[in-house]
Order: sequence, then C-alpha cells, then structure tokens
Amino acid sequence: AQKLSGGIGSKLCGMLVHSKQVECGREWGCRLRKSQNVSAADFFPDLLPAMDGDIKTMTFLQEVVDILLAYVVESFDRETKVIDFHYPNELLQLNNWELRDQPATLDDILISCRATLKYAIKTAHPRYFNQLSTGLDMVGLAADWLTSTANTNMFTYEVAPVFVLLEYVTLKKMREIIGWPDGRGDGIFSPGGSISNMYAMLLARFKMFPEVKEKGMSSVPRLVAFTSEHSHFSIKKGAAALGIGTESVICIKADESGKMIPADLERRILEAKQKGFVPFFVSATAGTTVYGAFDPLVAISDICTKYKIWMHVDGAWGGSLLMSRRHRWKLDGVERANSVTWNPHKMMSVPLQCSALLVREEGLMQNCNQMHACYLFQQDKHYDLSYDTGDKALQCGRHVDIFKLWLMWRAKGTIGFEAQIDKCLELSEYLYNKIKGREGYEMVFDGKPQHTNVCFWYLPPGIRYMEDKEERKKHLHKVAPVIKARMMEYGTTMVSYQPQGDKVNFFRMVISNPGATYEDIDFLIEEIERLGQDL
Amino acid sequence: AQKLSGGIGSKLCGMLVHSKQVECGREWGCRLRKSQNVSAADFFPDLLPAMDGDIKTMTFLQEVVDILLAYVVESFDRETKVIDFHYPNELLQLNNWELRDQPATLDDILISCRATLKYAIKTAHPRYFNQLSTGLDMVGLAADWLTSTANTNMFTYEVAPVFVLLEYVTLKKMREIIGWPDGRGDGIFSPGGSISNMYAMLLARFKMFPEVKEKGMSSVPRLVAFTSEHSHFSIKKGAAALGIGTESVICIKADESGKMIPADLERRILEAKQKGFVPFFVSATAGTTVYGAFDPLVAISDICTKYKIWMHVDGAWGGSLLMSRRHRWKLDGVERANSVTWNPHKMMSVPLQCSALLVREEGLMQNCNQMHACYLFQQDKHYDLSYDTGDKALQCGRHVDIFKLWLMWRAKGTIGFEAQIDKCLELSEYLYNKIKGREGYEMVFDGKPQHTNVCFWYLPPGIRYMEDKEERKKHLHKVAPVIKARMMEYGTTMVSYQPQGDKVNFFRMVISNPGATYEDIDFLIEEIERLGQDL
Repeated sequence: AQKLSGGIGSKLCGMLVHSKQVECGREWGCRLRKSQNVSAADFFPDLLPAMDGDIKTMTFLQEVVDILLAYVVESFDRETKVIDFHYPNELLQLNNWELRDQPATLDDILISCRATLKYAIKTAHPRYFNQLSTGLDMVGLAADWLTSTANTNMFTYEVAPVFVLLEYVTLKKMREIIGWPDGRGDGIFSPGGSISNMYAMLLARFKMFPEVKEKGMSSVPRLVAFTSEHSHFSIKKGAAALGIGTESVICIKADESGKMIPADLERRILEAKQKGFVPFFVSATAGTTVYGAFDPLVAISDICTKYKIWMHVDGAWGGSLLMSRRHRWKLDGVERANSVTWNPHKMMSVPLQCSALLVREEGLMQNCNQMHACYLFQQDKHYDLSYDTGDKALQCGRHVDIFKLWLMWRAKGTIGFEAQIDKCLELSEYLYNKIKGREGYEMVFDGKPQHTNVCFWYLPPGIRYMEDKEERKKHLHKVAPVIKARMMEYGTTMVSYQPQGDKVNFFRMVISNPGATYEDIDFLIEEIERLGQDL
Repeated sequence: AQKLSGGIGSKLCGMLVHSKQVECGREWGCRLRKSQNVSAADFFPDLLPAMDGDIKTMTFLQEVVDILLAYVVESFDRETKVIDFHYPNELLQLNNWELRDQPATLDDILISCRATLKYAIKTAHPRYFNQLSTGLDMVGLAADWLTSTANTNMFTYEVAPVFVLLEYVTLKKMREIIGWPDGRGDGIFSPGGSISNMYAMLLARFKMFPEVKEKGMSSVPRLVAFTSEHSHFSIKKGAAALGIGTESVICIKADESGKMIPADLERRILEAKQKGFVPFFVSATAGTTVYGAFDPLVAISDICTKYKIWMHVDGAWGGSLLMSRRHRWKLDGVERANSVTWNPHKMMSVPLQCSALLVREEGLMQNCNQMHACYLFQQDKHYDLSYDTGDKALQCGRHVDIFKLWLMWRAKGTIGFEAQIDKCLELSEYLYNKIKGREGYEMVFDGKPQHTNVCFWYLPPGIRYMEDKEERKKHLHKVAPVIKARMMEYGTTMVSYQPQGDKVNFFRMVISNPGATYEDIDFLIEEIERLGQDL
C-alpha cells in the first residue's frame, strides 16, 4: 500500500489502503483502480466542512496566502523577471500537471500552487506592457478574494443582496458620468467587452424588430451594421453569432490616425439602403485596440440620428477616459449613444474581468432577453422584484464582477481613478516624445496618440539605410517578432506587436499599469535596442 | 479642510487639502469639486506599487484575509444564520454604499468588507439549499484566490502559459470520462451553462450550414431545434440571440418524472420536416433544473443519428454524475452526443463560475468562431500556436476558470469527487424516504429522484383535509412562498420553490453541498413544519 502523509483525503486514503482494489475497466472512460469498500457517507477530508476542520483550514489557507503575498511583492520588484518562459512541451515536463484518480496531500497542493505561480506571467510587473489590461490593484485584489469567498451568483437579490445593490449603484454612477440625465437607463456587467458589444447589437436589433425574438432573422429584412476598419473583431464575431453574418458588417474607412471617416459612413449607409438593406447598428470605437483612436462621436451621432440607427460606442478600452477631466473631451458625443461598452478591467486596472454595457433606454434589456424562468424569478416573492435582474442577461448564473470595481472606487474616489489614468497618459506622451525624433524609430501614424497606444517601428542599424524599400519592409516585418521572443526569453519586459493592413509588424506599446514609471519607459527603449541591434 | 487618517490616497488627499477647490459643473456628469493643483504624476497611494509599499500592502491584505477566514469558519457553523436578511430599501440605509469623488481610508475599506459580508448569503452554510451551486470547497477557494492574484487572461499561451495547459489537460480528462476515444475532441470553459449551451447551438448551425457565418440566417432555410418542455430556459434564450427565434424551439413532451419522450421527439421532427423546416439541433437534458430528470440519451441519439441532427446534452446540472461509478449509467449514451455542457460549479462544488462545453469534433469551434485578430493571434510567434485558443471563443478576454477545478481535482482525485457526489445523492434519497409517507407531504412526481432534486408539497394541517380541490390548490400555492419568506427572515435555512405547468408552488430541494448531513435534512423538515403549521 502506498504511503500517504496527512492532508486532504487522508482519511479516505486510509480506508483505501486497506480495501480490496479491482480493475474497473472503462467505467470512468479511463483506467482506474476501483475500491469496493469506500463508503461515501463516511468520507470527509480534514478541511472544513469536516468536524473540527477549522484550525486545519485556517492553517492551510494562511499558507496559501503567504505564497500569494510573496508573489505579489515579487511581482512589483523590477529585479524579478516578468516571465520565466518555457515552450509548451517543456512546461508540460517541468511539473506533473496530470489529473489523477487518487487524492493528493496538502503539501502537494501547496507545491502545485508554487509551480503555477513560478511559470505564470507577472501581470502586475511594472514592465509588463503586453495587453490592455495590466497591473494589479491591491484593493481590487482584496475585493476579488472577498468575492471568491462569498461565492455567489448575480441572478437574484435573494442570493446576492449586497452585490445586486452595488451593481445598481455603480451602473447608475457610470451612466451619470456618460452624461445621461440623472444617470437613468439600464446596464449589466458581462464577461468581457466582446459579450458587451454582442448585447448592444442584440438590443439594437430587438429595438427595431421586436418580433425577431420569437420569429428569428427570417422575419426581418436584411440588416446591416457599420463599424470602422480599425474596430475590434468582436463586432464581426457578434454578427456571426447573432445570425446576421459577417458580410453584413460594413467596415468604414478610417483616416491615417485610425478614426472612422463620417462621410464614408454616410456614403455606405446610403449604399446599403439603395440595395434594400436595413442599417440598424453603428458601432463607433472610443479607443481602438491598436492605434487607440477615438472615432468622432458627435459627427457619427448626427448620422445615426438622421438615419434612425442605433448608435453604440465601444469604449471597452477608451471608455475609462470619461473619468478624466483632462481627457474626456475625446468622447464628446458619447451621451448621444444608445449603448456604451466600458471595461473597467482595462484602463482602470480593475482585476479581470469587469466589463459593463450601459444602455440608455430602460426596460429594453429585460424585454429583449427575458424568458420568465419560474424556478428563479418567482413573482410571489416577499421583496421588490425589480432587484432580480437576472432575466435581462443572456447568462443564467452570472459571476460577481462588481465588488472589485466598487471597492476600488471607494478606495480611490473618482479623483483617484482620474489621477492614475492621467498618469498613464502622461507616460505614453513621454514615450512618444522620446522616440518621435530618435534615430532608428518610425512612428506608424503622425501626431500625438490620443490614448496610451504608441505604435512604432524600431529599425536596427543594419536596415536603417537600406535603399530597396521592399527588401527593407520584408526585413522590418521580422524584427518585432524576434525582439519580442527575446524579451520573453530574457523575461525582462513584454510588449505587443502586430501588422495592420499594409503595414508590416510594428510595436504597439500601451500603458494601463499605474505602477509604471518614466524609468520603465526608458528601460523598454533600451531593451528594444539591446535586443534588436544585431537584426 | 477635512481630517484624513492614513491609508489609500492619503498623500493625494494631503495635497488636496491644500489645493484650491472649485466647482467643475457637469464635467463628470455629476457634482464634483475640482482640485486644480492635483498632479497625477505625483500621485501614489501608500500600497504597492508605491515605493516601500510592501509592508503596508501585506498588512492590509492580511487584515482582509483575517476577515475572510473568520467568515469562512462562521459560514460552516450551524449556529450562524444563513442570511441576515433585509429588504432592498432597508439594506440601502444600513450602510453607506455610495461612490464618492474623494478617496477613503484603509479603515473605511475594511469596514466596507465587513459590511458586505455581514449582509451576504452564507452560501457555504450546510443549511443553504437554495441553488444548484452551494457549498464552498477550501481548495477551490484557495485556487480562486491564486487566480485573482495571477490576474490574467485565457486568450493566448503567451499570457497564461500554465492555465492554458491546465485547461488542455482538464478538458481532455473530461472528454475521456464522457467516453470519447482517447479523450479526443475540443472544448472550452465558458461563463456559465447558458453560454455553453449557446455555443453548442452555434456549432450545430455552423456544422450544417457553414455559410451562415458570413451570410447570416437569410442564407439558410428555417431551422428548428428540439428540447424537452422541462429543459433549461437557456435553450430558448440562445435561439432568440442567435436569430433562430424562440418559436423555432420545439418543446417535446416529458413524462411524469420529467424525462423527454423520444416518440414525441420523432413525431415533432417529422412534423417539422413536413413543413419544410430543417431540424438541426436536439438538446437533451441530463439533470433537469426542477425535477433532476435525465432524458433517455440512447433513444434520443438513435433519433438524432437517423435524422442526422446534432445531439447536444445539457448536463450543466447532471453531467457531474459521470464522475460516479454508481450513478453514471443515468447518462448512458452521452458518448454519442456531439456536444456536452457540464458545470463543475454545480454538483462538484467548484467555486463560481466553472462551466465547460465539450465538443466531439476537433477544429469546428475554431472554424466557427475565429476572426484572425492579428493583434492577438500573430502567426509568427516563437511557440506552438495551437495553444493560442482564444480565437475559438465568442469572448476575447476570458476569465481563468480552470485553476480551481484543476486544483480541486488534484486534491480529491477523481475518487474524492465521486465520494462527495455519491454522498449528496444519499442525502437526497434519505430526504425522499423520510417524507414519502410522512403526514402532510405530497411528492410532485412518483418514484425515487434520479438526481438530488426532491420536489414536494408541504400541506399545513389546516388544508390537509380540505374537500374543495380547487380551494385547496389555491391555498397550497401560497404556502411555499410564505414559508420561504419566513425562513429568510429567521435566517435558518433556504430552499427553492416554484410552480411548474399546472402544478402549484412546490419546494424543490437540491443538495450539492458535501458539508450537509442527515441532521441538516432533518432540520429542514422540522423548520418547514415549524414555519408552516399555522398556514
């Protein structure tokens, strides 16, 4: 019999050691030794809910917390690697990640926690610039730990009284900030910006053709949606899912800096109408993913008003600039939108995920999505049913994403969010100014970036003066991927790159971590030059 | 100037106290006092990433953890209330939940955490039976805390190397358990069973008519889906969203115990075909929400094979019985399904949310959903791109839901999950046997429940012998809501109730918390009788 030290399942294992083991064949669809004498009713691990499990539980959780606290402190330390990178097949070998039939010991669980963090990306690291969501807010983290501990669901007031109220309070505040009178309207926290955008498209379609809910797309004329060629791919993904089809998403031209050209929007709307199609949805982007461009919302809303089209603003990335008195002018006109996506998990550093869809019209979400499930939304409950908001969601169970945002807002105040957003924008301006005229750099588009996105090419000395433009382009296309791969292997920093249209691979630097400093920007540039000079 | 104690934003506030304050009007869409002299670049709260913020951070997080540990221990204590219930308008008054412009102190943040937990439902409480997801697993909780701390995103291997591998390992294991050869196939963890079911419907449609992705529903004939009248409302919600329409979801009759009647399914398929519609999707339910019934999967799969229809199994609730050698026969035939929804956050007590969609055909999800966003899924990366699974999702950013399931599986082994599932089923059998012949109880359907759902009416003495059946029914309909309201006011226990079809309000007891005992079942019955005897 195998030796088993104390910990989870040790009592069970104690029984197993003495029980007769037989082959169970394919009963679990996999090889397993069957223990005939296990009585489930007798089974308890040593942690809670086991009798007298509280001391052991607190010791175990405290040990995990100690591991986590050490990781947090280490993550902010510039002397630490952003990542200890290994290729997938290597990583599979570095630890035993397999799932087994038999229980493990508590020590093994702690070892697994340490291994998981050892090979994780330190997303809080001040030199991790790879995604739109970076950094780690300590109050947000505390709030997320509390959320896990409360372990409940957003569908009814009954099971999430506080969280439902906090969602109500926070959505109202966000609508006030958008500029809707008295913060009136509706909204929901959804699992990410793509789903928020899909909600908006769903609402726009339902608003124009409510019969679509029962009768489907065969009951309506051909619908077309419009968004800029620089917009997020979720608009097309949403159209594919909703049965609208990606060909019915018309991509509007953007200018050099990535903003939608309103005249092209109007032209394409007219063109669609002439073909007998029905324009129902315009998604303007406030902060495009790559360039960080803000579409001209006032001009777009004039067009939407003129042609009676639902105006959505995808502010997943740029919506948070509404918190900044210095930068919110970039979203002028947002108050005229019918719906707004705004992801506090990006520029406001709220832990993942936290995405809101805000809707101007009250009651529409409910009508669009409700199915009256009587086992959840009983109409004869003893409290105000308007707080049972679950039926307006596409989801049934919905994760509590509100508490981390709410608690951070309490901690910082609106003014604290503003300060950290302004700071990130100052850092990106610093980067822009630093490389704009620097030898070996070319900007992807002219002019000061509107968000924290700074898009640029780094040209290693060897190709700076290449005469053959095609040859140079071909070479340049390979530079960013190699530098990025080296960054990851050294683990010193991480930044994103991509091609766009006919532009070869360029770096897209974004800053959303308020822990980054001018020195970190300097470091990034030095690192790019160090890793790229021989290319 | 206001007095501000140390903590978050105290340095900022220090500055503010001395700065000139002016009205900013509607700049934030709400009243706010503008501080002209705030320099964002100077702003740092005292916690990390502030210089030397580590001691303060660790102290703060430890204080939060102490609050959480106390809450955990209290949650398992039967002497504690399940809920300290207050009506929404009362709860709004009991604490200051408002969001402010100014920062709070750390002390205020701790007070907010305590208040939030004070009024929360103790979902770990052994007498909380209200939802399909109950209980709190200590290893799952630890894993969720680690997930929050790692704060990353599932879209690429680059930003979530370990989690992406663990998702791969776990999905494969789940497919093996379903019975697909060598665990081959595909899958994803999604934000809940409704979204998993929607994915399945999306895949079924794409498989039959791949052109729908580009051309939308106008390019395809009228599609119809089939599911039992007892199935979850997410099937209709999904059909509404995907542009199929709720009228194209045909509800198949269920027998007395809630199982779909295969003969009725075949009849309705033929009827639909005669009308020229195209049957594309059958969703069989393994564990219905209210009765816990398992549709006969073998008979249904025969029909699906015969008519070449995608067979989906919604095992959100019942899928976990596959982990039990004693109960997995209830899902016989599941290996013939094209897709399976399985929510480990229900019967396996994984913290919310953790829902998987498993798909038999490899590559289909990718083809169905991919949009090739080049800023995320660069094709010239230095590692094996098959681990960049983000493009097969409807979401862009995707929360890490895998680690809690994986770590729990390590801790318990397959055998530990089996034991806890078997135990919950034993408890429900105990409840069923206890009340089956007891005076004052009527079962909603005959026979032993197949899952842990026990559906019953409690008849207070005053109506037990009422002769007027209509009058009795009317009276009985009001009994469960009143008892439930009283349970919540006393905070002693919570159980769900609902009407179904022509059946008036009845209790639906479910057990998914392995911390519950026979004594808790006895307590529930005593409590129902104590609170309901005067009705």
